[in-house]
Amino acid sequence: AGSTKSDVARLARDILGDRHPQFIPGHPVAGSEMTGPEAADPLLYHGCKVVLTPFDETPGAVQHRLIRIWEACGARVLLMDPVAHDQALASVSHLPHFLSAVYMGQVVRTQDADTRLNLAGTGFRDFTRIAAGSPEVWRDIFFSNRAAMLRELDDFEQVLKIWRAALEDDTHPGTLEALLDQSALARRFWGGRSQMP
Amino acid sequence: AGSTKSDVARLARDILGDRHPQFIPGHPVAGSEMTGPEAADPLLYHGCKVVLTPFDETPGAVQHRLIRIWEACGARVLLMDPVAHDQALASVSHLPHFLSAVYMGQVVRTQDADTRLNLAGTGFRDFTRIAAGSPEVWRDIFFSNRAAMLRELDDFEQVLKIWRAALEDDTHPGTLEALLDQSALARRFWGGRSQMP
Repeated sequence: AGSTKSDVARLARDILGDRHPQFIPGHPVAGSEMTGPEAADPLLYHGCKVVLTPFDETPGAVQHRLIRIWEACGARVLLMDPVAHDQALASVSHLPHFLSAVYMGQVVRTQDADTRLNLAGTGFRDFTRIAAGSPEVWRDIFFSNRAAMLRELDDFEQVLKIWRAALEDDTHPGTLEALLDQSALARRFWGGRSQMP
Repeated sequence: AGSTKSDVARLARDILGDRHPQFIPGHPVAGSEMTGPEAADPLLYHGCKVVLTPFDETPGAVQHRLIRIWEACGARVLLMDPVAHDQALASVSHLPHFLSAVYMGQVVRTQDADTRLNLAGTGFRDFTRIAAGSPEVWRDIFFSNRAAMLRELDDFEQVLKIWRAALEDDTHPGTLEALLDQSALARRFWGGRSQMP
Protein backbone atom coordinates (compact mmCIF):
# COMPACT_ATOMS: atom_id res chain seq x y z
CA ALA A 1 0.00 0.00 0.00
CA GLY A 2 1.85 3.11 -1.25
CA SER A 3 1.81 5.91 -3.79
CA THR A 4 4.01 4.39 -6.51
CA LYS A 5 3.86 0.93 -7.99
CA SER A 6 6.54 0.44 -10.73
CA ASP A 7 9.40 0.54 -8.20
CA VAL A 8 7.56 -1.79 -5.79
CA ALA A 9 6.77 -4.30 -8.54
CA ARG A 10 10.44 -4.28 -9.63
CA LEU A 11 11.69 -4.80 -6.08
CA ALA A 12 9.17 -7.59 -5.47
CA ARG A 13 10.46 -9.49 -8.50
CA ASP A 14 14.06 -9.03 -7.35
CA ILE A 15 13.57 -9.93 -3.69
CA LEU A 16 10.73 -12.45 -3.66
CA GLY A 17 11.98 -14.41 -6.66
CA ASP A 18 9.61 -17.20 -7.69
CA ARG A 19 7.11 -16.23 -5.01
CA HIS A 20 6.48 -12.69 -6.30
CA PRO A 21 3.03 -13.64 -7.77
CA GLN A 22 1.80 -14.10 -4.18
CA PHE A 23 2.39 -10.39 -3.58
CA ILE A 24 -0.03 -7.86 -5.09
CA PRO A 25 1.11 -4.23 -5.05
CA GLY A 26 -1.77 -1.93 -4.14
CA HIS A 27 -2.59 1.71 -3.51
CA PRO A 28 -5.61 2.87 -1.50
CA VAL A 29 -6.37 6.39 -2.76
CA ALA A 30 -7.35 7.74 0.65
CA GLY A 31 -5.85 9.67 3.53
CA SER A 32 -5.10 13.22 4.47
CA GLU A 33 -2.12 15.37 5.33
CA MET A 34 -2.13 13.73 8.81
CA THR A 35 0.06 10.79 9.84
CA GLY A 36 0.49 8.57 12.88
CA PRO A 37 -1.91 6.60 15.10
CA GLU A 38 -3.88 9.71 16.16
CA ALA A 39 -5.02 10.12 12.54
CA ALA A 40 -6.65 6.64 12.50
CA ASP A 41 -10.16 6.58 11.01
CA PRO A 42 -12.26 3.37 10.86
CA LEU A 43 -14.16 4.70 7.82
CA LEU A 44 -11.01 5.80 5.96
CA TYR A 45 -11.56 3.34 3.08
CA HIS A 46 -15.32 3.78 2.81
CA GLY A 47 -16.14 4.72 -0.78
CA CYS A 48 -12.46 5.23 -1.69
CA LYS A 49 -10.70 3.67 -4.67
CA VAL A 50 -8.00 1.07 -4.33
CA VAL A 51 -5.70 0.36 -7.27
CA LEU A 52 -4.17 -3.11 -7.46
CA THR A 53 -1.38 -3.89 -9.92
CA PRO A 54 -1.11 -7.71 -9.89
CA PHE A 55 1.62 -9.47 -11.87
CA ASP A 56 0.56 -11.37 -14.99
CA GLU A 57 1.59 -14.52 -13.10
CA THR A 58 -0.64 -13.83 -10.06
CA PRO A 59 -3.41 -16.50 -9.91
CA GLY A 60 -6.98 -15.20 -10.27
CA ALA A 61 -8.02 -16.80 -6.96
CA VAL A 62 -5.33 -14.81 -5.10
CA GLN A 63 -6.45 -11.58 -6.78
CA HIS A 64 -10.09 -12.23 -5.93
CA ARG A 65 -9.34 -12.89 -2.27
CA LEU A 66 -7.57 -9.51 -1.95
CA ILE A 67 -10.32 -7.73 -3.89
CA ARG A 68 -12.92 -9.13 -1.46
CA ILE A 69 -10.87 -7.94 1.54
CA TRP A 70 -10.70 -4.40 0.18
CA GLU A 71 -14.38 -4.44 -0.71
CA ALA A 72 -15.17 -5.52 2.86
CA CYS A 73 -13.48 -2.26 3.97
CA GLY A 74 -15.88 -0.35 1.72
CA ALA A 75 -13.39 0.32 -1.10
CA ARG A 76 -13.86 0.05 -4.86
CA VAL A 77 -11.05 -1.88 -6.54
CA LEU A 78 -9.43 -0.99 -9.90
CA LEU A 79 -6.87 -3.17 -11.64
CA MET A 80 -4.13 -1.28 -13.50
CA ASP A 81 -0.72 -1.55 -15.07
CA PRO A 82 1.88 -0.18 -12.59
CA VAL A 83 3.35 2.32 -15.09
CA ALA A 84 -0.09 3.73 -15.99
CA HIS A 85 -0.87 3.96 -12.27
CA ASP A 86 2.30 5.91 -11.55
CA GLN A 87 1.69 8.40 -14.37
CA ALA A 88 -1.95 8.94 -13.34
CA LEU A 89 -0.96 9.44 -9.71
CA ALA A 90 1.87 11.80 -10.69
CA SER A 91 -0.84 13.84 -12.39
CA VAL A 92 -3.73 13.89 -9.90
CA SER A 93 -1.87 13.52 -6.62
CA HIS A 94 1.86 14.23 -6.78
CA LEU A 95 1.84 17.30 -9.05
CA PRO A 96 -0.87 19.10 -7.01
CA HIS A 97 1.17 18.46 -3.87
CA PHE A 98 4.31 19.77 -5.53
CA LEU A 99 2.62 22.92 -6.87
CA SER A 100 0.88 23.62 -3.58
CA ALA A 101 4.19 23.34 -1.72
CA VAL A 102 6.09 25.46 -4.29
CA TYR A 103 3.39 28.13 -4.00
CA MET A 104 3.53 28.06 -0.19
CA GLY A 105 7.33 28.38 -0.39
CA GLN A 106 6.95 31.37 -2.70
CA VAL A 107 4.53 33.21 -0.40
CA VAL A 108 6.56 32.79 2.78
CA ARG A 109 9.77 34.08 1.24
CA THR A 110 8.21 37.47 0.34
CA GLN A 111 9.04 40.55 2.40
CA ASP A 112 5.41 41.20 3.34
CA ALA A 113 4.52 37.53 3.94
CA ASP A 114 2.78 38.35 7.23
CA THR A 115 0.43 40.89 5.65
CA ARG A 116 -0.32 38.49 2.82
CA LEU A 117 -0.98 35.48 5.03
CA ASN A 118 -3.20 37.59 7.25
CA LEU A 119 -5.51 38.16 4.25
CA ALA A 120 -5.60 34.53 3.13
CA GLY A 121 -9.07 33.00 3.07
CA THR A 122 -10.79 29.72 2.35
CA GLY A 123 -9.47 29.48 -1.23
CA PHE A 124 -5.90 29.70 0.07
CA ARG A 125 -6.73 27.24 2.86
CA ASP A 126 -7.94 24.54 0.46
CA PHE A 127 -5.29 25.16 -2.19
CA THR A 128 -2.47 24.80 0.35
CA ARG A 129 -3.90 22.12 2.66
CA ILE A 130 -1.80 19.36 1.07
CA ALA A 131 1.39 21.44 1.45
CA ALA A 132 1.25 20.62 5.18
CA GLY A 133 1.89 16.93 4.47
CA SER A 134 4.91 15.05 5.82
CA PRO A 135 8.14 16.26 4.09
CA GLU A 136 9.77 12.82 4.52
CA VAL A 137 6.83 10.94 2.99
CA TRP A 138 6.57 13.34 0.05
CA ARG A 139 10.30 13.44 -0.60
CA ASP A 140 10.14 9.64 -1.01
CA ILE A 141 7.05 9.80 -3.24
CA PHE A 142 8.56 12.48 -5.50
CA PHE A 143 11.87 10.67 -5.94
CA SER A 144 10.31 7.24 -6.45
CA ASN A 145 8.05 8.72 -9.16
CA ARG A 146 10.54 11.27 -10.48
CA ALA A 147 10.38 10.45 -14.20
CA ALA A 148 6.57 10.67 -14.30
CA MET A 149 6.65 13.84 -12.17
CA LEU A 150 9.10 15.56 -14.54
CA ARG A 151 6.88 14.67 -17.52
CA GLU A 152 3.87 16.21 -15.74
CA LEU A 153 5.88 19.28 -14.77
CA ASP A 154 6.97 19.76 -18.40
CA ASP A 155 3.38 19.63 -19.52
CA PHE A 156 2.18 21.93 -16.72
CA GLU A 157 4.85 24.53 -17.55
CA GLN A 158 3.79 24.44 -21.20
CA VAL A 159 0.13 25.07 -20.30
CA LEU A 160 1.17 27.77 -17.82
CA LYS A 161 2.92 29.59 -20.69
CA ILE A 162 -0.31 29.58 -22.72
CA TRP A 163 -2.34 30.97 -19.80
CA ARG A 164 0.28 33.57 -19.00
CA ALA A 165 0.26 34.78 -22.61
CA ALA A 166 -3.54 35.05 -22.40
CA LEU A 167 -3.24 37.19 -19.25
CA GLU A 168 -0.58 39.41 -20.80
CA ASP A 169 -2.78 40.17 -23.81
CA ASP A 170 -5.42 42.49 -22.33
CA THR A 171 -6.73 43.38 -25.81
CA HIS A 172 -8.31 39.88 -26.03
CA PRO A 173 -9.80 39.10 -22.60
CA GLY A 174 -11.94 36.40 -24.24
CA THR A 175 -8.88 34.14 -24.65
CA LEU A 176 -8.30 33.89 -20.90
CA GLU A 177 -12.03 33.62 -20.26
CA ALA A 178 -12.28 30.63 -22.63
CA LEU A 179 -9.43 28.90 -20.79
CA LEU A 180 -11.05 29.63 -17.42
CA ASP A 181 -14.35 28.36 -18.74
CA GLN A 182 -12.85 25.04 -19.82
CA SER A 183 -11.23 24.48 -16.41
CA ALA A 184 -14.36 25.49 -14.49
CA LEU A 185 -16.56 23.15 -16.54
CA ALA A 186 -14.10 20.28 -16.14
CA ARG A 187 -13.91 20.81 -12.38
CA ARG A 188 -17.68 21.04 -11.98
CA PHE A 189 -18.14 17.91 -14.07
CA TRP A 190 -15.58 16.07 -11.95
CA GLY A 191 -17.25 17.28 -8.74
CA GLY A 192 -20.57 15.86 -9.91
CA ARG A 193 -19.14 12.58 -11.14
CA SER A 194 -16.85 11.93 -8.19
CA GLN A 195 -19.44 12.89 -5.58
CA MET A 196 -16.68 14.93 -3.95
CA PRO A 197 -17.91 18.51 -4.62
CA ALA B 1 -16.92 45.36 -2.24
CA GLY B 2 -14.64 43.59 -4.76
CA SER B 3 -11.29 41.89 -5.19
CA THR B 4 -9.17 44.82 -6.40
CA LYS B 5 -8.96 48.33 -4.99
CA SER B 6 -6.47 50.50 -6.97
CA ASP B 7 -8.71 50.59 -10.04
CA VAL B 8 -11.84 51.30 -7.97
CA ALA B 9 -10.14 54.13 -6.05
CA ARG B 10 -8.99 55.69 -9.34
CA LEU B 11 -12.44 55.44 -10.89
CA ALA B 12 -14.10 56.89 -7.76
CA ARG B 13 -11.84 59.96 -7.93
CA ASP B 14 -12.64 60.38 -11.63
CA ILE B 15 -16.39 59.90 -11.44
CA LEU B 16 -17.41 61.17 -8.00
CA GLY B 17 -15.23 64.29 -8.16
CA ASP B 18 -15.28 66.27 -4.88
CA ARG B 19 -17.56 63.73 -3.24
CA HIS B 20 -15.14 60.79 -3.53
CA PRO B 21 -14.21 60.90 0.21
CA GLN B 22 -17.78 59.78 0.98
CA PHE B 23 -17.03 56.50 -0.79
CA ILE B 24 -14.84 53.90 0.91
CA PRO B 25 -13.57 51.04 -1.26
CA GLY B 26 -13.73 47.74 0.62
CA HIS B 27 -13.12 44.04 0.18
CA PRO B 28 -14.71 41.36 2.35
CA VAL B 29 -12.36 38.36 2.17
CA ALA B 30 -15.15 35.77 2.16
CA GLY B 31 -17.17 33.69 -0.25
CA SER B 32 -16.84 30.47 -2.16
CA GLU B 33 -16.80 29.31 -5.77
CA MET B 34 -20.62 29.69 -5.78
CA THR B 35 -22.52 32.71 -7.07
CA GLY B 36 -26.13 33.87 -7.25
CA PRO B 37 -28.96 34.14 -4.70
CA GLU B 38 -28.96 30.39 -3.95
CA ALA B 39 -25.46 30.77 -2.50
CA ALA B 40 -26.66 33.30 0.11
CA ASP B 41 -25.37 32.65 3.65
CA PRO B 42 -26.40 34.84 6.63
CA LEU B 43 -23.16 33.95 8.45
CA LEU B 44 -20.91 34.63 5.44
CA TYR B 45 -19.06 37.51 7.13
CA HIS B 46 -18.78 35.89 10.56
CA GLY B 47 -15.11 35.90 11.56
CA CYS B 48 -13.97 36.99 8.10
CA LYS B 49 -11.63 39.90 7.37
CA VAL B 50 -12.75 43.03 5.57
CA VAL B 51 -10.16 45.35 4.08
CA LEU B 52 -11.11 49.01 3.72
CA THR B 53 -8.97 51.41 1.69
CA PRO B 54 -10.31 54.88 2.61
CA PHE B 55 -8.98 57.99 0.84
CA ASP B 56 -6.72 60.29 2.88
CA GLU B 57 -9.54 62.84 2.61
CA THR B 58 -12.24 60.55 4.04
CA PRO B 59 -13.37 61.92 7.44
CA GLY B 60 -12.69 59.67 10.45
CA ALA B 61 -16.38 59.72 11.45
CA VAL B 62 -17.37 58.28 8.05
CA GLN B 63 -14.74 55.55 8.34
CA HIS B 64 -15.85 54.63 11.84
CA ARG B 65 -19.47 54.32 10.80
CA LEU B 66 -18.59 51.82 8.07
CA ILE B 67 -16.24 49.91 10.37
CA ARG B 68 -19.09 49.52 12.90
CA ILE B 69 -21.43 48.22 10.17
CA TRP B 70 -18.94 45.55 9.13
CA GLU B 71 -18.24 44.63 12.74
CA ALA B 72 -22.00 44.21 13.28
CA CYS B 73 -21.87 41.54 10.53
CA GLY B 74 -19.19 39.73 12.54
CA ALA B 75 -16.23 40.85 10.40
CA ARG B 76 -12.81 42.09 11.49
CA VAL B 77 -11.79 45.28 9.68
CA LEU B 78 -8.28 46.07 8.38
CA LEU B 79 -7.30 49.46 6.88
CA MET B 80 -4.82 49.27 4.01
CA ASP B 81 -3.33 51.16 1.11
CA PRO B 82 -5.08 50.04 -2.13
CA VAL B 83 -1.84 49.09 -3.91
CA ALA B 84 -0.64 46.96 -0.98
CA HIS B 85 -4.09 45.34 -0.86
CA ASP B 86 -3.97 44.44 -4.54
CA GLN B 87 -0.49 42.90 -4.33
CA ALA B 88 -1.40 40.87 -1.22
CA LEU B 89 -4.61 39.63 -2.84
CA ALA B 90 -2.79 38.79 -6.08
CA SER B 91 -0.60 36.60 -3.91
CA VAL B 92 -3.00 34.81 -1.56
CA SER B 93 -6.17 34.75 -3.67
CA HIS B 94 -5.65 35.42 -7.38
CA LEU B 95 -2.48 33.39 -7.98
CA PRO B 96 -3.88 30.25 -6.29
CA HIS B 97 -6.97 30.55 -8.46
CA PHE B 98 -4.86 30.96 -11.59
CA LEU B 99 -2.59 28.00 -10.78
CA SER B 100 -5.51 25.77 -9.82
CA ALA B 101 -7.24 26.57 -13.12
CA VAL B 102 -4.04 26.11 -15.18
CA TYR B 103 -3.48 22.75 -13.50
CA MET B 104 -7.09 21.68 -14.16
CA GLY B 105 -6.67 22.74 -17.81
CA GLN B 106 -3.49 20.67 -18.05
CA VAL B 107 -5.10 17.51 -16.67
CA VAL B 108 -8.16 17.58 -18.91
CA ARG B 109 -6.19 18.00 -22.11
CA THR B 110 -4.25 14.74 -21.55
CA GLN B 111 -5.11 11.64 -23.58
CA ASP B 112 -5.90 9.54 -20.49
CA ALA B 113 -7.73 12.32 -18.61
CA ASP B 114 -10.62 9.99 -17.69
CA THR B 115 -8.35 7.42 -16.04
CA ARG B 116 -6.52 10.18 -14.21
CA LEU B 117 -9.64 11.95 -12.97
CA ASN B 118 -11.09 8.63 -11.84
CA LEU B 119 -8.16 8.26 -9.42
CA ALA B 120 -8.32 11.81 -8.07
CA GLY B 121 -8.91 12.01 -4.33
CA THR B 122 -9.40 14.58 -1.59
CA GLY B 123 -6.08 16.34 -2.25
CA PHE B 124 -7.10 16.95 -5.85
CA ARG B 125 -10.59 17.98 -4.72
CA ASP B 126 -9.29 20.71 -2.40
CA PHE B 127 -6.50 21.89 -4.69
CA THR B 128 -8.91 22.38 -7.60
CA ARG B 129 -12.03 23.55 -5.75
CA ILE B 130 -11.41 27.21 -6.66
CA ALA B 131 -10.95 26.33 -10.35
CA ALA B 132 -14.74 25.85 -10.53
CA GLY B 133 -15.29 29.59 -9.88
CA SER B 134 -17.11 31.86 -12.33
CA PRO B 135 -14.97 32.41 -15.49
CA GLU B 136 -16.49 35.89 -16.01
CA VAL B 137 -15.79 37.05 -12.44
CA TRP B 138 -12.23 35.72 -12.52
CA ARG B 139 -11.45 37.09 -15.97
CA ASP B 140 -12.34 40.53 -14.58
CA ILE B 141 -10.30 40.05 -11.42
CA PHE B 142 -7.22 38.87 -13.34
CA PHE B 143 -7.30 41.74 -15.83
CA SER B 144 -8.03 44.41 -13.23
CA ASN B 145 -5.07 43.16 -11.17
CA ARG B 146 -2.88 42.15 -14.09
CA ALA B 147 0.34 43.97 -13.14
CA ALA B 148 0.37 42.52 -9.63
CA MET B 149 -0.55 39.07 -10.99
CA LEU B 150 2.34 39.09 -13.47
CA ARG B 151 4.77 40.06 -10.68
CA GLU B 152 3.53 37.12 -8.59
CA LEU B 153 3.72 34.76 -11.56
CA ASP B 154 7.33 35.84 -12.20
CA ASP B 155 8.21 35.08 -8.63
CA PHE B 156 6.34 31.77 -8.62
CA GLU B 157 8.08 30.61 -11.81
CA GLN B 158 11.44 31.47 -10.25
CA VAL B 159 10.68 29.38 -7.15
CA LEU B 160 9.30 26.57 -9.31
CA LYS B 161 12.68 26.42 -11.11
CA ILE B 162 14.47 25.99 -7.78
CA TRP B 163 12.13 23.15 -6.72
CA ARG B 164 12.36 21.47 -10.09
CA ALA B 165 16.15 21.50 -9.93
CA ALA B 166 15.92 19.91 -6.47
CA LEU B 167 13.68 17.15 -7.87
CA GLU B 168 16.01 16.56 -10.83
CA ASP B 169 19.00 16.05 -8.55
CA ASP B 170 18.33 12.64 -7.00
CA THR B 171 21.84 12.49 -5.55
CA HIS B 172 20.82 15.11 -2.96
CA PRO B 173 17.27 14.26 -1.82
CA GLY B 174 17.82 16.43 1.27
CA THR B 175 17.54 19.61 -0.85
CA LEU B 176 13.94 18.87 -1.85
CA GLU B 177 13.13 17.65 1.64
CA ALA B 178 14.34 20.95 3.13
CA LEU B 179 12.11 22.89 0.72
CA LEU B 180 9.13 20.65 1.53
CA ASP B 181 9.85 21.07 5.23
CA GLN B 182 9.80 24.86 4.99
CA SER B 183 6.45 24.85 3.16
CA ALA B 184 4.88 22.31 5.50
CA LEU B 185 5.95 24.27 8.59
CA ALA B 186 4.68 27.53 7.10
CA ARG B 187 1.33 25.98 6.21
CA ARG B 188 0.90 24.37 9.63
CA PHE B 189 1.81 27.65 11.33
CA TRP B 190 -0.72 29.51 9.19
CA GLY B 191 -3.38 26.88 9.93
CA GLY B 192 -2.88 27.37 13.67
CA ARG B 193 -2.78 31.16 13.49
CA SER B 194 -5.70 31.59 11.12
CA GLN B 195 -7.92 29.04 12.90
CA MET B 196 -8.69 27.68 9.42
CA PRO B 197 -6.87 24.30 9.56
